Parts: sequence; C-alpha cells; structure tokens
Amino acid sequence: MTAPFDFAPLLAPGTPAPAVLWKGFPKYNFIGGHNDAKHVPVEALVAAATAVLRREGATLATYGLNSGPLGYRPLREFLAGKLADHAGITCSPDEILITSGSMQGLELVNSLLLAKGDTVLIEQETYSGALTKLNKLGVNVIGIPLDEEGLRLDIVERTLADLKKKGITPKYIYTIPTVQNPTGAIMGEKRRAALIKLAAEYGVMIFEDECYSDLIWSGERPRSIYSMAKGEGVIFIGSFSKSIAPALRVGYIVAKWEVLARILGLKQDAGSGALEQMVLAEFCTQHFATHVPKLNKTLRAKLQVLREALAEQFGTAAEFGDPAGGIYLWIKLPEVVDSQKLAQAALAAGVSLNPGPEWSTNKAYARNRLRLCFANPEPETIRQGVAVLAEVCRREFGVPLRSANVDRKS
Amino acid sequence: MTAPFDFAPLLAPGTPAPAVLWKGFPKYNFIGGHNDAKHVPVEALVAAATAVLRREGATLATYGLNSGPLGYRPLREFLAGKLADHAGITCSPDEILITSGSMQGLELVNSLLLAKGDTVLIEQETYSGALTKLNKLGVNVIGIPLDEEGLRLDIVERTLADLKKKGITPKYIYTIPTVQNPTGAIMGEKRRAALIKLAAEYGVMIFEDECYSDLIWSGERPRSIYSMAKGEGVIFIGSFSKSIAPALRVGYIVAKWEVLARILGLKQDAGSGALEQMVLAEFCTQHFATHVPKLNKTLRAKLQVLREALAEQFGTAAEFGDPAGGIYLWIKLPEVVDSQKLAQAALAAGVSLNPGPEWSTNKAYARNRLRLCFANPEPETIRQGVAVLAEVCRREFGVPLRSANVDRKS
Repeated sequence: MTAPFDFAPLLAPGTPAPAVLWKGFPKYNFIGGHNDAKHVPVEALVAAATAVLRREGATLATYGLNSGPLGYRPLREFLAGKLADHAGITCSPDEILITSGSMQGLELVNSLLLAKGDTVLIEQETYSGALTKLNKLGVNVIGIPLDEEGLRLDIVERTLADLKKKGITPKYIYTIPTVQNPTGAIMGEKRRAALIKLAAEYGVMIFEDECYSDLIWSGERPRSIYSMAKGEGVIFIGSFSKSIAPALRVGYIVAKWEVLARILGLKQDAGSGALEQMVLAEFCTQHFATHVPKLNKTLRAKLQVLREALAEQFGTAAEFGDPAGGIYLWIKLPEVVDSQKLAQAALAAGVSLNPGPEWSTNKAYARNRLRLCFANPEPETIRQGVAVLAEVCRREFGVPLRSANVDRKS
Repeated sequence: MTAPFDFAPLLAPGTPAPAVLWKGFPKYNFIGGHNDAKHVPVEALVAAATAVLRREGATLATYGLNSGPLGYRPLREFLAGKLADHAGITCSPDEILITSGSMQGLELVNSLLLAKGDTVLIEQETYSGALTKLNKLGVNVIGIPLDEEGLRLDIVERTLADLKKKGITPKYIYTIPTVQNPTGAIMGEKRRAALIKLAAEYGVMIFEDECYSDLIWSGERPRSIYSMAKGEGVIFIGSFSKSIAPALRVGYIVAKWEVLARILGLKQDAGSGALEQMVLAEFCTQHFATHVPKLNKTLRAKLQVLREALAEQFGTAAEFGDPAGGIYLWIKLPEVVDSQKLAQAALAAGVSLNPGPEWSTNKAYARNRLRLCFANPEPETIRQGVAVLAEVCRREFGVPLRSANVDRKS
C-alpha cells in the first residue's frame, strides 16, 4: 500500500520543470520587485487592521465580504478617487476589479482575449512575467523597439499595417507607459494620444500596465492612456505591490463595465484575500497620499547610490540612464558580456540580477544588458553588491578593466 | 478618440457570459459556503494581526516574506502539526504549499495532470466548483454513485476495469471522503484502504479534498487517505475557509516533494496573500484547537434547526439525513419538483439554494434534489427561509401539500 507511486506518466504534456526548494534570499538581492523594508508602514497597518476588523470583521464569514465579486468596496472607492487624482481616470467603483496581484490581472486579460496562435504587440523590453505567460499560451509575440519615451510608434504603425495585409488583427498592444519596466521610460501625452488613435484605427485594444506609476520622484506624470481614451478600447491594470508592499498580493483592473463583466465571468477564485483588501483600504484612505512621497524619497536616493556604485566599479563599461522613477535600472555592458552567464556566476557569489534576455523579445540585443532592482537592499549593500558584481564580471569577461576600490589578485 | 470600441471581435473563443452586477446577498442565503458571522474570532484576529505585524511586518517588503514560494513557514509548521494530530498525516512543512483558497489547489492539481480529452473519476454528487473547472478543461468526467459511506468501490473497480480494456488510465479519482460535499458522507478506514489499493493497482492518483474535515461534531474522524497511503499516489488539499472564515482565501496542498515541486513550478502568482497567512498562523497556533469545537457546536445546532424546519414545512415530502458534520444538507424532494426551476422561483422570493444538477454528474438523478447550506443564516432566518421555500415549492409544484404554520390563500 505504500509502494512508491510513479506519477510521471500522469503528468499533463508541457508541465514545467520542478521547482527547486527555496534556500533563502541571496545576500545582494537585485531582483524580484522587492521593496524597502523600512518603509513598510507597520504601525499604521496595525492600526488599520485593528480598526477595520473591529468594525467589519464579522463580514469575513461571507465570501466577498459584503461587497460582491468585484472586491472590497471601500478599496474600490479609494482607488476611484486615487485614479482620478493621479491618472486622470474617471471611473466608478464598479469599473474596478480587485485582483490577487497584477499577475492575476495579466492572466485574466490574457484569458479574455487570447487563444493559441493569436498575435500581440508588446514593448521589446518588458516585464518577464508577461513574456512568460504569453509564451506559455502559444501566442505570436511581436516586440516593438523602444526609445527614451517608450514604444516607437513608427514601428507600431508599420507592424500593424504589415499584419493587416496578412489579415491579422493583433489582440492587444501591451504597454507599461509610465516608468517602463525595465527601461524606466515615461511616454508623453502626445505619443499616448497618437497610440490611442492608431490602436482604434486598427481595432486593437491597448493593455496598459501601471504597476510602477506611483513611484515617480516628481509626483507628476502624464494622464494615463485609459484616461485619455475615456476607457474606450483600453484595459488598465495596477498594483499595491510597489507602493505599499509586494507580499500583499493586491492589484486591480480598470475597464468599462461591459469588458469588466466579461473578465469577472472568468475570475473563478471566490474572490481575492479579504483581510489584505480591508487593511489596505483602511490604510490607504488615511495614509497613501503621504506614504508614497516618503517611499519615493528613499527609492530615489537608492537609485543614486546604485548609479554611483556602477560608475565607480564599472566606469565607462556600464551604460545606464537616470530614470525618473521606479525600482530598477536597465544597464548595458560591453558586448563581450553574456548577461545570462554573468547572472549564474554572480549568483554563486551572492548577487542576484535579471539578465537582459529574460526581459526582452530580442535576445541578441539584450544579451549584454541586465536589470538591477535597487529598492530592497540598503545603500551599503548596494555598494558592496555592485563591487562583487564587478569582480565577477571582470573574472568572467575581462570587463570592467580595473576595480576602483580593491586590488585584485588576478 | 473616444468613439465606442467594439471589443467583441477580439474575445477568445469560449469566453463565458458576462457576469451580472452584484446587488447584495439574498435575504435567505442557503448557498455559497458562507459561515457563522458570530464565530469570526474578531478580537483574536486583531491580537494576531498586531503581534505578527509588529514582529515581522517589515518582511512584507519581500515577495514570499522570508519563507519562499511554498508560503509563510509558520503557517506550514502549524499545518504540519495539525494534520498530524487531526488526519494522521506525517509530513514536513516543505511538503505543504499554501494556496489562495482550495480553489487554487483544485486548479493547480488540474494543471499538473489534466489535458483536454483526459478521463477522471469523481463522486457522482460533488462540489460544483470542481465540476465547472473539469468541464471547462474538456475532460471526460465519470461520476461514481455514492452510498452512505461515499464512493461505491464496486463501481469504481468496474469502471477502472472497463477503461483499462479501452486502454484508458484515468488521471485521478477525486474524492471528498470526510464530510462529502453535498451528501455529508464519511468514508470509513476500511473503504479508504480498499480505494488506495485499487488506485495503486490501476496506476491512478487519488485527489483527496478535505475542505470540510474540521467540521465534524464529534471531533473524531478516520485517518486521511493521504495518511493511510503514506502520501504515495495521493494529493491532499485543505482550506481555512470553513474553519475560520471563507473571505480569507487561504488553502493548502499536501503532497510528496517530487509532486509538490512540479505543482510549485506551475504556481506563477508571486505567492498567496501574506497578511492572511501571517494572521492565520498567529491565530491558529494559539486558538485553532479551541475555536473549532465552539464553531461546530453552533453549526450542529443550526443543522438541527434546518432539519426541524424542513420536517415541519415539508413533512414527508423532503427526505434528508443527519450528517455528522459540515455546513450543508442534501435533500430529496418529490419527483415532480425540478430543483433548477425551484431555485429560480425561490430566488425571486429571497431564498437562494443550490439545485441538485449543479452538484452532480447525473442530472436526471439530481433533478429533484438540492443542497441547503445552514452555516450563515441565523436560526430564525433558517426557519423563515424554509417556510418561504415551502410556499414557493407548493405554488410551483404542488408539494408540500400543506403548510404547517400559515394558512394559504391558494
């Protein structure tokens, strides 16, 4: 009765490789969208949890609380106000669906629109999680090159025209227009307007991902595409992962009710976690507006530490910009560097990083590029981690030529 | 730029119908797995949230806290202990994966094993959510009739033999052996042992769903199938929805690490909600053992209220058992009754119920059966709701013949 059971013959085709048992975070953690631990507003979250549980805790006895499947209504009300102030979006709480992180938002939008063999346009450099999901679905993914404002519209237009000749209508254009991941680009309103016009002309939806848009140093940003299009032909997703805490898996979708009703028909999970929604609503209503600028001040300082450390350790071998927000820096190293090999060697030395090819549809272009996230490590850890990375890179690829602060044996 | 956008041509094939905007719960709510509102342990949850946030709140800044993708380790440690005491399961915290409700557990196990056209065996009467997911996957679902102990093994055996002749190995046998949903049956250990033997002989996995096993009036239960098989060939799922609160979307999968590593490879959601896991771990470690018996006492009393109300209002027209646990009663009405039509008419009168065909693979058998959940409504609401239901049933189908407590105009 307890003989080993061989389950391998029962696996569905295409099952991914088994996961490896987690052994803890690396010492120098430059991946994963983690955030600044000192800025988790612990006492305010305690106060929020206490107040909301005492007031409404009994509603946990019902699926969806007393708010139905769109999610906790006070959180949707907060979001409607925040999105109006911040992104220029006019929407009702019934045009907002709370999701279990923006990951679920991505999955739901994909489920709504995509079947195997469909075509989508995305930014050539983009969020690896979005790429992974699209590849898993067997979708034809066309990457559009970026410039300092993001999506190059001349190439979007040419691609749409070429596809039209072949009788293909892409299902959506996926964009992160506000603090693009990983480049940090912010698309101006003029280009947004042109993109809306182009998408409407070709009957393609725009899928706007605004996970990082709260993290802009100046606090000022262009209106969202959703806002400028008055929601027509646009689905918008956002998240609290970056502005409050990533372990709280709370994101949201904004769409016209006709679209959202379809998405809601697909969300068969009996709702997203209620306690997180309740605590977030209670916290954000009081503190979001003051919390985010404080966080941004710290993030901006960490970015400068990272940029200085890179300049010090890599000299001219590392090229990078000065993004106006976000938690990551996109870096170009000399052509001799293979960032995937670098990532492996660096991990063995305690440094985790995102190699470029995982964040791009153009593997050759991204081969010598990489993404470093700077929100989680403390400034001194950033400095040390970049020094270790430079050492590994020099050992593996001969660049940077010399180290700034340590004599090397090699 | 703001002309209406027609997204209908872009929808993936087979997209479900749009959801209807939620308008609140019905007055007499006998569906949905909701629980007793008075037993949400609000003050203990406040204390748990306060303690755990003060101690570990800063870890919310990292995905997966400091526990990795299997979920918050103290919750997995609590579960390992609880499952040992309660279900006889010996497993390590690394053989437990925290999920966003047991719904995600169902989805992950299905993703692991099932492709379109595969065959599975399930209990003829079963959880409608499981049925819906299987139908969506295009799986060949074979329902096995039940008796007072659950799955009829004679029919399981005959079915497995018949399939083998056709060269078909079912992927799994899905069972809710401990407080079966909806019949309330509890499978004895002798039958469990025979089922394990049979499944091993045919190389079929057993998928054991124990969402309700905490809610047994006596507090005593057979060992789990997982325990008796020492985990070989069995995947086990459970939930905190029924024992603590359904709006907390926290469930779990128990499986041998080789199996769990494969499932973990499929779980691409950046983890389940951390706050719920943290608060549950803190609460359960201190209070689970005393909380559950108190809840069960109330549930048992509500079940008796429901049974008495049915006897009073329906007389011999309603046939039902006296389940030893759970939150639902499975009821047979006279053959003249179509429970799906009854559900529609009852809802118009403020009474929600689960019509039998939604909870069975045998639509004809289940036509005049229905499920009533008794955990959420207060005793007086149960009595009133059953009276309204009897009135609607009499009006629509002529049974029950007379009402016990009210004179009718008709």
